[in-house]
Amino acid sequence: MVKCILNNKIVNCYEAFIHISDLTLLRGYGVFDFFRLVGLEPLYFHDHIERFFHSADALRLKCPVGRKKLISMILELIETNNIRNSGIRIVLTGGASETGYSIGDPSLFVINEPINPLPKDYFANGIKLITHEYSRDLPEVKSINYLMGIYKLPEIKKMGALDLLFHWNGKISEVTRSNFFIVDKDDRLITARHGVLKGINRKHVISMAKERYIVEERDLYLEELAGAKEAFITGTTKKVMPVCQVDDILIGNGKPGPTTVQLQKMYEGYTEEFLKTN
Amino acid sequence: MVKCILNNKIVNCYEAFIHISDLTLLRGYGVFDFFRLVGLEPLYFHDHIERFFHSADALRLKCPVGRKKLISMILELIETNNIRNSGIRIVLTGGASETGYSIGDPSLFVINEPINPLPKDYFANGIKLITHEYSRDLPEVKSINYLMGIYKLPEIKKMGALDLLFHWNGKISEVTRSNFFIVDKDDRLITARHGVLKGINRKHVISMAKERYIVEERDLYLEELAGAKEAFITGTTKKVMPVCQVDDILIGNGKPGPTTVQLQKMYEGYTEEFLKTN
Repeated sequence: MVKCILNNKIVNCYEAFIHISDLTLLRGYGVFDFFRLVGLEPLYFHDHIERFFHSADALRLKCPVGRKKLISMILELIETNNIRNSGIRIVLTGGASETGYSIGDPSLFVINEPINPLPKDYFANGIKLITHEYSRDLPEVKSINYLMGIYKLPEIKKMGALDLLFHWNGKISEVTRSNFFIVDKDDRLITARHGVLKGINRKHVISMAKERYIVEERDLYLEELAGAKEAFITGTTKKVMPVCQVDDILIGNGKPGPTTVQLQKMYEGYTEEFLKTN
Repeated sequence: MVKCILNNKIVNCYEAFIHISDLTLLRGYGVFDFFRLVGLEPLYFHDHIERFFHSADALRLKCPVGRKKLISMILELIETNNIRNSGIRIVLTGGASETGYSIGDPSLFVINEPINPLPKDYFANGIKLITHEYSRDLPEVKSINYLMGIYKLPEIKKMGALDLLFHWNGKISEVTRSNFFIVDKDDRLITARHGVLKGINRKHVISMAKERYIVEERDLYLEELAGAKEAFITGTTKKVMPVCQVDDILIGNGKPGPTTVQLQKMYEGYTEEFLKTN
């Protein structure tokens, strides 16, 4: 029987419910975080816990348990469930709302879910994105608002794409659930600095890449796409995933370029090393 | 014991819960509608039911009960609870999600909640709004996404305002939970046509006002605020509520103007007549 966390207890998943008066159900107000296990080892655990509490603070949501307790409960959950290479999703709700618009005492739940591996072809041959003029609300907070991304799924599928690439005022920000990089003609990696969720994998890929490449975090303009030699996205399940097409624009020659392939290789070693030394 | 509806049953409110795998809890994906009772009589019932199903269709959410069954259950709920002048909130969730991002079989719940009457002073002396550059996602769908409005509550309160007035590309759209009108120098009523939720009270106020005033649904520009003689908002609980200040701009002389006061009077008669004849 798979277990989950509800507030300060580990319970059976089928017993974990939230009351209909919760602000998340009434107004979509809540935060979350998500990370994966390598075997049974949480990857970038500390980073995700920190970002989760940062998101909660930004939305004035008080987590019913503190960092230490949350960490120890999650470790116990992982051990109990024993699901290798699975994902951990931490959600903090708005709590029972007195007026239907006010924040209450948030509920916490943590789901330990299997991760369906993404097709190997995506990593080997790259994926397509379609652009969409949009700015996420409070982009630096990992809120649960994914209305636009889910609404657009049929269109994304129809276009043979994996996801949306958001741009705003001529600037590329991010993908619905990942960060976006280009490799320019001088082999520099460029990714948006502002108006994006600061992905944990984004951070680690930047840190790792800096050993070998120049990395620029700055405004990234739509026009730069046409001149990009390569592009890729980073995320918990995407790791480093080549982007070969954006709308009708082929990136480079439409195949993963050497820098992206190099980063993919480095990433495997980097995470292994990270888990050993942290 | 107050009752509510959960899917196809009337149950005790304290028993009504949604499973943590629901897409509304994981991704803020869901729709709702809200109307009020005059005594025990639902106001603009048919309009709200139609809009609710329209919102559900737009987000590809299949309601577990059809229109007829929903209407008869809500009427039974109203009779059972017997809470005069209360509100009815209908919510349709995204359903249990297999992947954490896919739509499942939606859950329906209907809450019959007391409405705390807004201060009489708001109706008599008007309220203040503060502008915010923002466009709601899918504005014509009544989704549950109110992240921005709730996030901004402390700032709104600090500024002595009731709510946010959204504008985008120089155009005024709407207030977080109501529609916005100005009265121009020629006593015409002007309200945004595009990029707004088509409020049910907006519709009825327009229909009622047309008997006496010219009403224009068109692009409404921020610059027009300074020259407006009056402004007001419409909504289920706001009815017709004067707006006397937007940021630092006093509207007219900073007091409710004759047209708004006239519309408030007409609105009372209009709803009474509407309930008698519908």
